[in-house]
Amino acid sequence: MDGTDSGSPCAEGAPDATGFYRHIVTCNLPIDEPFLPWRIDGLPVGWLRPAFAERLAQFPAVFDVRPTEVQLRAELRGFDTRSQALDGVARQLAQEDVTPPYMGESYAVTPSDRDQALCTLDRAAAAHFGVLTFGQHLNGFVRRLDGLHMWLARRALDRLLFPGALDNMVAGGLPHALGLQENLAKECAEEAGLGEDLAGNAVPVGVVSYCRAAPRGLRRDLLYCYDLELPDDFVPQNKDGEVEEFLLLPLSEVAAIVRETDQFKLNCNLVVIDFLIRHGWLEPDSPDYMGLVLGLRRPLADAMSA
Amino acid sequence: MDGTDSGSPCAEGAPDATGFYRHIVTCNLPIDEPFLPWRIDGLPVGWLRPAFAERLAQFPAVFDVRPTEVQLRAELRGFDTRSQALDGVARQLAQEDVTPPYMGESYAVTPSDRDQALCTLDRAAAAHFGVLTFGQHLNGFVRRLDGLHMWLARRALDRLLFPGALDNMVAGGLPHALGLQENLAKECAEEAGLGEDLAGNAVPVGVVSYCRAAPRGLRRDLLYCYDLELPDDFVPQNKDGEVEEFLLLPLSEVAAIVRETDQFKLNCNLVVIDFLIRHGWLEPDSPDYMGLVLGLRRPLADAMSA
Repeated sequence: MDGTDSGSPCAEGAPDATGFYRHIVTCNLPIDEPFLPWRIDGLPVGWLRPAFAERLAQFPAVFDVRPTEVQLRAELRGFDTRSQALDGVARQLAQEDVTPPYMGESYAVTPSDRDQALCTLDRAAAAHFGVLTFGQHLNGFVRRLDGLHMWLARRALDRLLFPGALDNMVAGGLPHALGLQENLAKECAEEAGLGEDLAGNAVPVGVVSYCRAAPRGLRRDLLYCYDLELPDDFVPQNKDGEVEEFLLLPLSEVAAIVRETDQFKLNCNLVVIDFLIRHGWLEPDSPDYMGLVLGLRRPLADAMSA
Repeated sequence: MDGTDSGSPCAEGAPDATGFYRHIVTCNLPIDEPFLPWRIDGLPVGWLRPAFAERLAQFPAVFDVRPTEVQLRAELRGFDTRSQALDGVARQLAQEDVTPPYMGESYAVTPSDRDQALCTLDRAAAAHFGVLTFGQHLNGFVRRLDGLHMWLARRALDRLLFPGALDNMVAGGLPHALGLQENLAKECAEEAGLGEDLAGNAVPVGVVSYCRAAPRGLRRDLLYCYDLELPDDFVPQNKDGEVEEFLLLPLSEVAAIVRETDQFKLNCNLVVIDFLIRHGWLEPDSPDYMGLVLGLRRPLADAMSA
């Protein structure tokens, strides 16, 4: 990593991991290439590949691109002014095919938590700018006499990312303008046909975090996790076309899929492992237990001083 | 911190924290003094204050004390040989009042997890040697119509550490020779009079970790956490004299004690906060939520490559 005063943005993982721990490593692969910090008002809000930082030099009214870092122009003051400037940049980068197509979803740009956001940026450009991204993942489960069963979603085959992969029952990114409960209710309704009566029972149970150099840029993700116990006769119904099918499997089968295969979308593995730990399915003397518990909550470098 | 290749042993906290997050900070206070790494076979197993490292020079057959680190003599090979040598050192340091009185409880000395232990060391010397120490804390709770209630223990007034402070219902250190289930059953019986019928229902739910420069030395603690739902009519009974009294309080009262007072033994605050998060009592849009979730599981520097 670039030796800046903010330090390395991600922790490092073990190269020869197996089983569950393999997913911790994959989601937190050692960063073996330089990233430049991106700051607003001196506060680090993202990390950029040098080649992408060079592209930003085409917006001199917005960015001050230096050899070791990129700063948002100090003249751009205030949440709305900054957001509008970044929105223009995001639209143009999408038009030039530097980023995926413009999505019209405003994501927070923040040095730490959502309530500290300094402005917003279109979701399509989030990974390129290496900003913290926030999501919500829900474990839908049924308690039966023979143990817990978990509902899984298989992603639609036409999705841009991870088509056909297994997913948590409900999962989605978190736009800046929506509150946590509001967005969760929306995702529950759209993805699984869950009404407020059931979705309102979802219990917030913590956060899973990881940091990974992806093809698009640095993924620094924070996933709010929820557990939702469902009645035995409930069957999820997808409304937005993002889900191919739903499966209800015994927890041991879900665990085996995570441990032995790569059928799940990458970060969903972490959410399931967290569920297995919190519900005592993963015993504390099982292999890598300590590494799993601590590895599910990687501090995101400069991100996390509450 | 000393600029060794193992890096700083602890993370840093925010100085002006309030409420729940205050306890994360207190248990992880920034280390503003030098500690020297202590290695066995090249693997870092602990951190020593320089003055304590100097004391170890009086055992030249056991330690190679250098200006920047201390090594266990390479001639001492094998688990038992090393453990015996360290036991002799621990007995003498206790006799000389450098450490608290010898306890006769062998703790693991390990670069990472318990199953990687390279030898053992008496519990009384663990903090001076800055080794990872492992404990088990159990949240005993009752589900009532008006919500969860939690059993708390008040520590006996004659205890060496934190006399009279509030504690989790069952909590104890983890000797190297005992398995997790075996030690938990023992602590449950001794501290709260819990028989196997009830104690066997304890659910392992994860780990809380912290790192703190204490008067004795560097505390690097890993606490296995358990939840145990108890019948409404169960009343814990202490058998070993370590508990002054037990209290059953509504979860909101327990939360208020943690948030607003210092009545709990330091690390028990973290165990309760973890419970509040996992059971959804702490909402994800409450202050410092992200910092709390991530701060409860500090990576212990060189400790955690699974």
